[in-house]
This record gives sequence, structure tokens and C-alpha cells, in this order.
Amino acid sequence: MLLRADHYNVPKTKTDEHMRAFAEKVFASDAKDEDIREEISLFDVAEDCPILNQEHAMHEHHSLNYLFPTAYLICISFTAIFFTNHSPALILSYIFMHVLSKKMMLRATKDLDDKPLYLEVPDFQRVAIKGDYAAGVTMDDFELSCKGLYRALCIREKYMKLAIQRFSGTASQFLSAVEGEKWKVKNALLSSVFTAPPKQGEDPFDSKTLPENKGWVARMRDGVICIYKDAPAADKNEPMKLPAPDYATFIDDMNFLIALIAQGPTKTYTHRRLKFLSSKFNVHEMLNEMEEMKELKNNPHRDFYNCRKVDTHIHAAACMNQKHLLRFIKKSFRVDADRVVYKAKDKEMSMKDLFASLNLHPYDLTVDSLDVHAGRQTFQRFDKFNAKYNPVGASELRDLYLKTENHIGGEYFARIIKEVASDLEDAKYQYAEPRLSIYGCNPNEWTKLSSWFNKNRVFSPNLKWMIQVPRIYDIFRARNFVPHFGKMLENIFLPVFEATINPHANPELSIFLKHVTGFDSVDDESKHSGHMFSTKSPKPEEWDIAKNPSYTYYIYYMYANIAVLNQLRKERGMNTFLFRPHCGEAGAVTHLLACFMTADNISHGLNLKKSPVLQYLYFLTQLPIAMSPLSNNSLFLEYNKNPLLEFHQKGLVVSLSTDDPMQFHYTKEPLMEEYAIAAQVFKLSTCDMCEIARNSVLQSGLSAQEKTHFLGTGYLKEGPEGNDIRKTNVAQIRMAYRYETLCYELNLIKECLKGED
Amino acid sequence: MLLRADHYNVPKTKTDEHMRAFAEKVFASDAKDEDIREEISLFDVAEDCPILNQEHAMHEHHSLNYLFPTAYLICISFTAIFFTNHSPALILSYIFMHVLSKKMMLRATKDLDDKPLYLEVPDFQRVAIKGDYAAGVTMDDFELSCKGLYRALCIREKYMKLAIQRFSGTASQFLSAVEGEKWKVKNALLSSVFTAPPKQGEDPFDSKTLPENKGWVARMRDGVICIYKDAPAADKNEPMKLPAPDYATFIDDMNFLIALIAQGPTKTYTHRRLKFLSSKFNVHEMLNEMEEMKELKNNPHRDFYNCRKVDTHIHAAACMNQKHLLRFIKKSFRVDADRVVYKAKDKEMSMKDLFASLNLHPYDLTVDSLDVHAGRQTFQRFDKFNAKYNPVGASELRDLYLKTENHIGGEYFARIIKEVASDLEDAKYQYAEPRLSIYGCNPNEWTKLSSWFNKNRVFSPNLKWMIQVPRIYDIFRARNFVPHFGKMLENIFLPVFEATINPHANPELSIFLKHVTGFDSVDDESKHSGHMFSTKSPKPEEWDIAKNPSYTYYIYYMYANIAVLNQLRKERGMNTFLFRPHCGEAGAVTHLLACFMTADNISHGLNLKKSPVLQYLYFLTQLPIAMSPLSNNSLFLEYNKNPLLEFHQKGLVVSLSTDDPMQFHYTKEPLMEEYAIAAQVFKLSTCDMCEIARNSVLQSGLSAQEKTHFLGTGYLKEGPEGNDIRKTNVAQIRMAYRYETLCYELNLIKECLKGED
Repeated sequence: MLLRADHYNVPKTKTDEHMRAFAEKVFASDAKDEDIREEISLFDVAEDCPILNQEHAMHEHHSLNYLFPTAYLICISFTAIFFTNHSPALILSYIFMHVLSKKMMLRATKDLDDKPLYLEVPDFQRVAIKGDYAAGVTMDDFELSCKGLYRALCIREKYMKLAIQRFSGTASQFLSAVEGEKWKVKNALLSSVFTAPPKQGEDPFDSKTLPENKGWVARMRDGVICIYKDAPAADKNEPMKLPAPDYATFIDDMNFLIALIAQGPTKTYTHRRLKFLSSKFNVHEMLNEMEEMKELKNNPHRDFYNCRKVDTHIHAAACMNQKHLLRFIKKSFRVDADRVVYKAKDKEMSMKDLFASLNLHPYDLTVDSLDVHAGRQTFQRFDKFNAKYNPVGASELRDLYLKTENHIGGEYFARIIKEVASDLEDAKYQYAEPRLSIYGCNPNEWTKLSSWFNKNRVFSPNLKWMIQVPRIYDIFRARNFVPHFGKMLENIFLPVFEATINPHANPELSIFLKHVTGFDSVDDESKHSGHMFSTKSPKPEEWDIAKNPSYTYYIYYMYANIAVLNQLRKERGMNTFLFRPHCGEAGAVTHLLACFMTADNISHGLNLKKSPVLQYLYFLTQLPIAMSPLSNNSLFLEYNKNPLLEFHQKGLVVSLSTDDPMQFHYTKEPLMEEYAIAAQVFKLSTCDMCEIARNSVLQSGLSAQEKTHFLGTGYLKEGPEGNDIRKTNVAQIRMAYRYETLCYELNLIKECLKGED
Repeated sequence: MLLRADHYNVPKTKTDEHMRAFAEKVFASDAKDEDIREEISLFDVAEDCPILNQEHAMHEHHSLNYLFPTAYLICISFTAIFFTNHSPALILSYIFMHVLSKKMMLRATKDLDDKPLYLEVPDFQRVAIKGDYAAGVTMDDFELSCKGLYRALCIREKYMKLAIQRFSGTASQFLSAVEGEKWKVKNALLSSVFTAPPKQGEDPFDSKTLPENKGWVARMRDGVICIYKDAPAADKNEPMKLPAPDYATFIDDMNFLIALIAQGPTKTYTHRRLKFLSSKFNVHEMLNEMEEMKELKNNPHRDFYNCRKVDTHIHAAACMNQKHLLRFIKKSFRVDADRVVYKAKDKEMSMKDLFASLNLHPYDLTVDSLDVHAGRQTFQRFDKFNAKYNPVGASELRDLYLKTENHIGGEYFARIIKEVASDLEDAKYQYAEPRLSIYGCNPNEWTKLSSWFNKNRVFSPNLKWMIQVPRIYDIFRARNFVPHFGKMLENIFLPVFEATINPHANPELSIFLKHVTGFDSVDDESKHSGHMFSTKSPKPEEWDIAKNPSYTYYIYYMYANIAVLNQLRKERGMNTFLFRPHCGEAGAVTHLLACFMTADNISHGLNLKKSPVLQYLYFLTQLPIAMSPLSNNSLFLEYNKNPLLEFHQKGLVVSLSTDDPMQFHYTKEPLMEEYAIAAQVFKLSTCDMCEIARNSVLQSGLSAQEKTHFLGTGYLKEGPEGNDIRKTNVAQIRMAYRYETLCYELNLIKECLKGED
């Protein structure tokens, strides 16, 4: 079989001897030698940038002239320096690196000629591999791996479509090509629907436009809600035809993936590909860093500060920083000391009484005594971390300030959140997706939560809401709050289904759901359940033991319900939900596998470090990961060991998020603090930071209208075509590099499978 | 000789078998074992803190009862875990660790019984060494080292007194004890004088209270300004008797120190002591972290956010962040587009013309095109870093926005600084000490600078001013701006002497000098001059070659002039100046040696890593170091390799500073960003952060009035007596640990020298 990497099939170029000699000099010389410094600097910034800048402004709507002759460079000594840590086979595959001609470049990003200037990709140096052999593994192993990876991609595509979640257009296109089908753009773009922001004068709490009652009946069967035409149909169990995941198939698919991630040859192959991706990015940066920077410098009016960023993972109950909470408590005491705010055992207490009963006076309170900040004590101690949610260790204060349901109807919590929102609105370019809890203890939870939301009018254009479901069935069962796991699922999902079928029956909930964009599954992943998810697992209605089901069990049933729910809502023209669980923060790698099958995107993903196969699959499918290195630093992994930089370099889609500003951050701008620290510790370039910010917008539940506004009209397209540098400040060179690199990896699989036919 | 560590001469205590068994269980157990977690947590926060808190508030003026029985613990298995990296000799010396009895503790912090509650040190666990032998070196080596260190301390004490700078009271007390003198408190407290902040209604620019003209004459002789009664005395070279450093003695002292830091036995001894200090701190933290935290939690109203912190090292020309500068440029263009702001070759230009000539429009400007932020390109490239001071690479813009001397009289620069000051005033607890340049090119520089200061009324209670002198004689000489190095020194110092003798001759300068607190010496330390400072070095007036003198040569002549100047100003009742050079950022360790002799405190100090002798001397003399890890991260040393944490643990006096927010920081609060990143990466506790903040206030040029207000009335005292936890939020346990540790190290030297007599 001959592996053709069409994309890079360049005519052999003539070596520029002068360039080679220069390159050799560069890498042979000792950087400490002062005399040569000026001359050899790889990182020189073009001196002419003000002029370029002006030219750009003047000729914004003319096309650029390619003034610079294309340089050809074979740079053997260069590679030898950068890849000393790699296997000889891998090194050999790098030996030749070419600068592709302009013609090639244009072919790679084809059809751009009639595009506006901002979509053009400037000339840059590309890394190409000569020779047929790609990965230093035997042919048999290569074929085995490619088949496995291909099937894995198909599995994810299937489950994403089923739940109306997103799947990488590029990956989808390659799957079609393998299957010999013609790929339809529409197919790939079929995806989640989010509520657009209210128009001028429109009230986000308006209930007039809610759709009519369909009169259908929703009932839970085997842990998944089914929809029936009417009650008799429900009694006869004759559900309407809505696509839903099949339990046995899901288990089959999962077992296949479990085998795949443990398969030796696939582990070797993916490990090598990931190493290659990492090295390739390093070379790309060496060669093009200054060109990328030049694009950004020439990009008027947009920089890291005014490109949009979304805090893709933040818990509402910890979305303010510790100082903010402290100030709020003190302020509330000054104003409301005599107000009845708490009820304990039928005894009403004023705020004064409450603090007196805690032997506290708010004036004396400090962030130290408040004690909500994670420190060295919380490292590897998720239990202690959870206790930090109680200000001054007092659950009464958590209740009063950080809960939606309490004696004052969650008023303080709503006010704190609105203050956070107002800071975001002032900052203008920052958005957040706070997560509120639904526990599944009680079917009224949704009513209470949506009532809090509507009564307090907790709306901000800079906030998008998510629902988090803690995996604590065991606690509820032990206290006899629920008879079995099925009841918990019913409490979580049935009210949403009912509000979807008849929005007018519970208008507050229906309005709240319009502003909800997804579901999360949360808890300490390092807790081990001891249960294995299989065909023999009891059905949720039969799960009445005190033991908690496994992570995968939770994930499957949440996914299955969301899938049906999204089908129903889409049919009704309503917004749909994403499944965005916490995953891979700790615990087994199977968590990451379950989410590869079910989640639109995940939070954390640290444990991808442990499985090259899953990591490579997350890369191939461009599955977004909201990472929170400051949170990890206090809980699971020291900052400089965080894989964020490594993932970013390899091309995994990562965003930065704060998780819990109350516990982890010091400054008034937690998201900026998160970016600043990552920039400093990982030495991120501006282009890196803007790419991460762009990822965060794509990953988020912002509506299509907002994404178009923030990223450009083509944001659904992948590669440079989907990037409007004027809005994102991400260099087109970077976009082209990412796109070509992804295509190259997918192509390897395609060519292998084709060769086999 | 018997080494008596009086301080720790405790009666042998009885082992509590139960405690030992428990401790062994703790260290034998695997932390991963979930069942044992709860039980063994070393870091448990007391559950009773709200109650304690209230008790504290209620009984603030009563004395605490020592309710807890003193525990005794010999913890052999414990040490074995933590010191596996240390030499066996060192480990052996740790084997016994005692919790001193309450009686001992009170003896250690003697005379506290009649002190207010906040000065009390709570019971804590101390590390004591049993046996005579301290450092694992031979007796001869030990004596040799102690003699050398003793002389080094005497040298620093001498030069600090001479220049009216500060010397550690504790070290001074020990030197007196060695010499058999009675140490006088007054002696140690003799130190710099800073201008108090203006009282209510007082004008900081008021020139009415300036002292009268003394009519003396100041002339430069051999690079140092001398004061004469009158002109005839000057002609006859009969100077007034002002104490001044003696050149030959200085060289002698320096040569002694050079020999000392290269001396094998002293290197071994100090290296071992430093390792011991580091390990001792780790043990202290293990044992007392929660006790320290408890103190802070019980400390009402004060936390890290509202304890004072000073940005001890910040350049005025880069004191705003990049976004601030960008916004200012845009705003100025909107308002002043037609104003004449620049003059090039006799042609006056409006702001519009100026930007047009640069082919720029401010609207298009971004932080990327502004290009003042340091990135990966500046690492190990101080030259590139300096170029970053030019916005958009255009020196015209640097001139217009970041200079005190330009066509608009430095108006924009003054406005930017006042905006920064106003942010600090709003933040209330943050102060900064911006540094302005005097080049020594021209005798008018001072007049122009002080005129800028007065005309623009650049005063803020949150700013203290410093003068930085770049070491760029070679550039001035090459352009023939100065005939020799002596002239440069004269330009720098003569105007200050003249204003000191006759304040009314130049009231603007005299007023400016009231607000100046020190001098800095700046430039790239990694540039090597090739010149060795010795008795044979040409005198400054003879130094007319194009080559730059060495770092030490610069430092000596700046120091000598400041010493005389301070004597003169002190006599006249004026404020004095500190010498606070950049030192040890790069280059030779001799820089750190020169500053050990001459500087009140230094900036950077990274290279102390390279010399254990100097590092130990900096510890013994508690010489403050303003560190800027974010700056280092962009220029010389990656963040997680920064020695800040190591220095802090050993007990060197470190503070955190920003250096150049324009180049290094991202957020609106650069100093908080600096603290936040250090806290995250180094996992600093609140007590660590508050200790560093306290260090920054002590190190700064804030007046005695302000220091009393921010740190408490006893701030000049060392140890727990000097700490008012209600203002500093530093635990008294920490203060006692630091103080006892310093005394122990000084005592080792004292006892050795006594034994020898």
C-alpha cells in the first residue's frame, strides 16, 4: 500500500545553499556569544511594523501583494536539535522540511481567491514529511489502529447526531469520504440551538411567546423519559417515534472503545502521533511565530483585551471572589441587621440574631475567618474543598448567601450574581456560564429554581446558564429521600419534559429553560463506586441499594434523557441543551471514554494525559475541553505540571475557565487572572491566548447570533475560512496550521483504510 | 569548646508515648488510603473557629488562657521522611525535636508579660537541636568561617552607619555582645529619615518652610563631593569634617569579602546553614501552619487584602499597564489631535501630524501593535527588552508619552502617573515607589525634572519617589556628552548638594528632594565591563576612556556621594536617601558583594543562588530584597525556577514588586497580579503573603509616621515585639520563629568566637 499524503505532495525544491549555511551557523553557535546575538535572533520583530500597519489601514480592501520571494530551506541541523528526545524513527520522518510554494499554500486553503482580504492566509513555512511511512509502526499495526480509530470516530458522530450535539465538521467530512459518500455541509452544521439574546426592548422574562400545549404524556421507562401521544398510549407503552440511544448498542460501543484504548498497537500509534503533533507545533512556532505576530500587529483595533472570552466552567455558588463575598456580607449586615433572614426550628431569626448565634460580628470578619479560599490544605482533599463552600465553616451562612432556596427566597444570592454580571458587562468582552444545581431529590426543585430566577430577574446578556447535577444518589438514598435511582432521574428530567410539552403549565420554568444551555454532571471523580456499567447492570428503577452507581452509569442516563429531550425540543422549535460534564479531573480514564461518546464538551480532562488513544481521539474530533489550571493547582495537580500547554500545542481544543473564583482567585477579574497566570507560566504568545479565547466562545452556549457577532459570519466553518481575524485576533497562519494538521492526521487514517480496500 | 545554645537549653522532656505512636502511624500510612484520611489530616482547620473568633472579640483586652496542655513529641520517623535529601551529618543534628514548654517559650520572647495581648506569642512547636555540634564541619573550619562572617557583618554595619542607612538591630546587638559592649537601642535605630506625608490642609509643594542658606561650597574631588566652609577653603582644599568612606579601606574591605566568598570552609559552612534553615522552615510549617492560620482567623478586620503592601521596585516610565497606555494614547488623540505636541528639526507638529508621519492612526492601535509587552522574544535579551519602551517601536511616542522632558513639558507622562496614583489611592492599601531617571549627561537635568514634578503637581500620598541612574557612561562618552566619568558623577550629585546647602536657590528642586527617598543604579548587569575595581583604578576625573567602568566602580562612587550627602542632610534636619540599586539580576556575584557593603536594600538578588556565603550574609543582616519574579520570567529566569520561595523559607527578607507593569502584567492591578501568581505557583499561605507585604513596607521609603500607622508603633523592633498583628496580619508565631531562628544563627557565631577567646 502506498500512502499518499496528497495535501503535501510538493515537487522537490532546490536547496538554497546560502540559507542552509546560515541555518547551520545559527544552530551551531552558542547563544551566549554576545557578538552573534544580534545577527542570529530568530525572534526579531520586523522594524517596519508602523508602516505596515498604515499600509494595512490604507489598503484594507485591496489585496495584498506577495512581495517576498519564497524561500526554500532544508534544515537538517535544525531538526537534530529539536527532536533529540524522540525515537530515531520519528526523527527520520522529519528530516525534510519544506517551505511550500505560494501555489501549494493556496491549494491547501483552496477557493480563497474570491474571499475578502481578512480570510487570506499569509505565506508561511510549513513542515512536510517525505516518504511513505508515517508513524514508525508496522503496517499491520498501522491498519489495525486506523480501523479502530475510524470506528471510534463513527461512534462519536452517531451519538452526537442522536443528541443534537456538535461533531467536528472536518472529521465528519473525512468519515463521509471514507464511506464514499458526498458530505453535505448541512449535515455537519446540524447542531444545538440556543436562545438568541433579547432584542432592544424585548423582555427576557416575557411568557407570551411560549408555544402551545401539545397534550403529550411523558413517563420514565428504564431510566429514560418516553413521550406518548396520550395517557392510554402511555399505559399501553406505545411511545412516539423519537430517535433515542439503544442501551445494548451503547454498551457494545463502549466495550469496543474500552478494548481500543487498551490495545497495544493503537496505544503506540496514537502515542507517536501525539508526540509528532507536539514537535510539529514547536517547529511551526519556531518558523512562524513572528509571522503570526505580524498578522496580529497589522490587525487594527483588536487585541487580546477586546476579543471575546467566555468563562466556560464556573459554579454559580462560587462565582464571586472571596473579597466580594466578604464585602457583600458586611454590606448586607449594615442594611438588613434587623430583617428576618433565617428560620431554624420554627424560630425566626433576624440577621443580628443569626450572627449572634454564630458568635460572630460581620465587622470583624476577614477573608481569613471567612475561610472559603482553597489552600495547601485542600490539595488531594476534595472533601475539604467542598467544606470550603461554607463561609466561616457555618452552613447557615452558605444557606443565606449562596443558595437559591432559603427564608429570603435566595435574594442575596441573586444580588451577588447580578453584581458579578454587572462587572462582566462593564468589562464588556467577558462572558460566563454559571452552573446552578438540580439535585433530583424532589420534583419541585425545578419550580423553585425557576421561580427564583424569574422573581429576582437574574438575567444578564453576559451570562448563560447551565444545570449541574451532583452524583450523590448514595446520600439521598441513605436518608431515604428517594426510593431508587430512577426516581432521582425522574425528578431531574420529567419537569423539563413536561415544560417542553406544555410550556404554559409552568411558564416560569419554561422561561428559565430558554436561558439554560446545558447540563453538567459534578462530584469528586476520585471516589470509586466499585460498580461496572454493563448489560447486567440493574435498571435505574431497580437500583434501590444504598451504593452509588458508577460515573459511566450516571453519564449514560443523563445523556439518554438529554438526547430524547433535545429531539423533542428541536421538534417544538425550542432551544436544545448540551451535555458538558466534569470529566477527567481525577478517577479512571473510562470517565473520559464515556464522555467521548456522550458529551458535547467537557470540563478538566486532566486524565487524558493517561491515555494516548483517548487524547488522540479528543484531538481528531476536536472535542473542546474547559480547563482550570488554578483549580487543579489547589486540588489535583501542581500548576507547572498541568497539561494545558501540551494539549494546546498538540491541537486539542482547550479553553480557560475559573471553576470557583471564590476558592481560587485573588483579583477582581478572575478570568483575566486565569489567562494572565497561564500566559506567564506557560509563556503563551498573544496568538495562543486569542486562540484559547476563540475556543472558549465556540465551546460555549452563546447563541448563533452572538457567535456570529464575536467570531464572524463563517464561525461554523473550520480552518481559516471560519476565522475573522478582525474579530478574533487569531492569526490566519495559526488557523491554517491547525486545519492542515488536523486534515493530515485524518487523511492518514483515510488513506490507510482506502489502501486496504 | 562547648557550644551553648542558651536560647534552647531546655530540660529534657518526657516522651508522650501516645503522641509518638500516633505520629508514627501518620507517617507510615499511605495518604491514598481513604479510610485513614480524615483521621490523619495534618492540616485540619479547627472547627471551632467562629466561636474562637467571637471569644476574641469579646475578650480582646483580657489575656488568653493557655488551655491546652503542652504536648511533648519526639518524632524520629518524621524527620526521616523530610530530610532524605540532606547529608547524614545534617540529618543527625535534627533527630531530636522538642516542643518547648510554655515557660521556655515565654523566656524566649521575654518581657512580654506586661505587653498588650496582640504582642503575645501563642504556644507553638519549636525545633531544637541537641548536642554540641552544629554544622557538620570541622572545628577549625567552623572557627575560620565564624571569624570571617563576623568581620563581614562588622563591615556592613560600618558602611551602613556611615551612610545613615539601616542595619539589622538584632545583628547589631550580637556584634556588640561579641565585642563585650553594651548595645544601645538608639544606635540601631539611628537610620534614614523620610518626609512625613503632608498634614490636613498642608501643601506638599509649599516652599515656605525650606531651611536657610548655609553658604557652604560643594566641589567634587576624586569623584566624591566635598563640602567647604567657603570658596577660599575650597580652593585650599580644606573640607569640613564630614564622615566619609575611605577609598583604600573600602578596597581592603572589599578584597577581604571577595576572599571570604571564595573560601572553601566558609562556603561549606554557609551552604549547610542555609540548607538547615530551609529544612527548619519546612518543619516549622508542618508543625505550626494551622496555629499560624488560627491566629490570622482570630485577628479581626484585617486580612491580606487590607494589609498594606508597597511596590518596592517599579520604573515610572513603565508603571502603567499596556492597556492603560493604549487607552491614554487613544484618549489624548481624541482630545488633542490638533495640539502641537512635537518638534522635529525646528518643525512643530500637531499630534495628527506626528501620527501621520508614523503612518499610524490611534484608532487602529492595539496592544499588539503598541508592542510594549515583553514576551518570549525578550528572554535573555535585555537589549530587546529596552527597545520595548518605545511604543510601536517609535521613539517619538516614548518621547511624547513616557518622558518628563518634551515639547509639552511631560504633561502626558505626569497625567498617566497621576492616573496610576489615583488607582492606588482607590485601592487604598497599595503604595508604589516609582523611579525617575537622572542620567548625569547635563547639570540641568535635576532642574528640569523637579520643574516637571512641581508644575504638574505629581504628588500622591501613595507614591514615594526614587531616582535611578543608568550605568551608560560609555554611551555619553562616545557621543562626547561628558569629558570623563567624574563629570557624570558631578552632574548627578552636585545639584543635590547645592540644593541641600541653599534650598532657596532652587526651591523646586528642594521640594522635589523632600519627596525623593532613594537612589537606584540601573542597567543590564549581564554586560561585562572587563574592568576590575582596585586601588589602581583611575579616579573618576581621570576616567576619560570610552569604556564603561565596572558595576562595582559605579556602586562605590554612588554610595560615597550618598554617604556624604546624607551626613549633610541629616545635619540640616532634612530627609536622607537610601541606596537601593538593581543588583544580582544577572552578571557576576561581585555585584551582590558590592551592594552588601553599600546598599540599604536591593532589587532582584537572583544571583544569591550562586553564592552561599553572600546568601547567608544577606540573611544574617536581614538585607531586604525586592524581587520581581514576573519580570525575571520574561528576562532571565523561568517562573518556577525563581528563588523567591527558597529565600523566603530560609528567612531572607523578600518583598514582591512589579518592575515594569507595562511590559509584564496583564490586569488592572499589577501588584495584586504579582502576589496572586506567586501565591498560586509557590503555594504561599496567607501568613507568607502578609509577611512579604510587611517586608515591603519595612523596606520602602515610607516615612516613620506611615510605617507606625501601617505596622504598629513598635515597627523598629525586631521579632514579635515589632509586629502588630492587628495591622499586619502576620502571625506572632511566625515572627517568633523568624526572630529565634536569626538569633540562633547569630548566636552560633558569637559562641564560637567567645570559645576562642
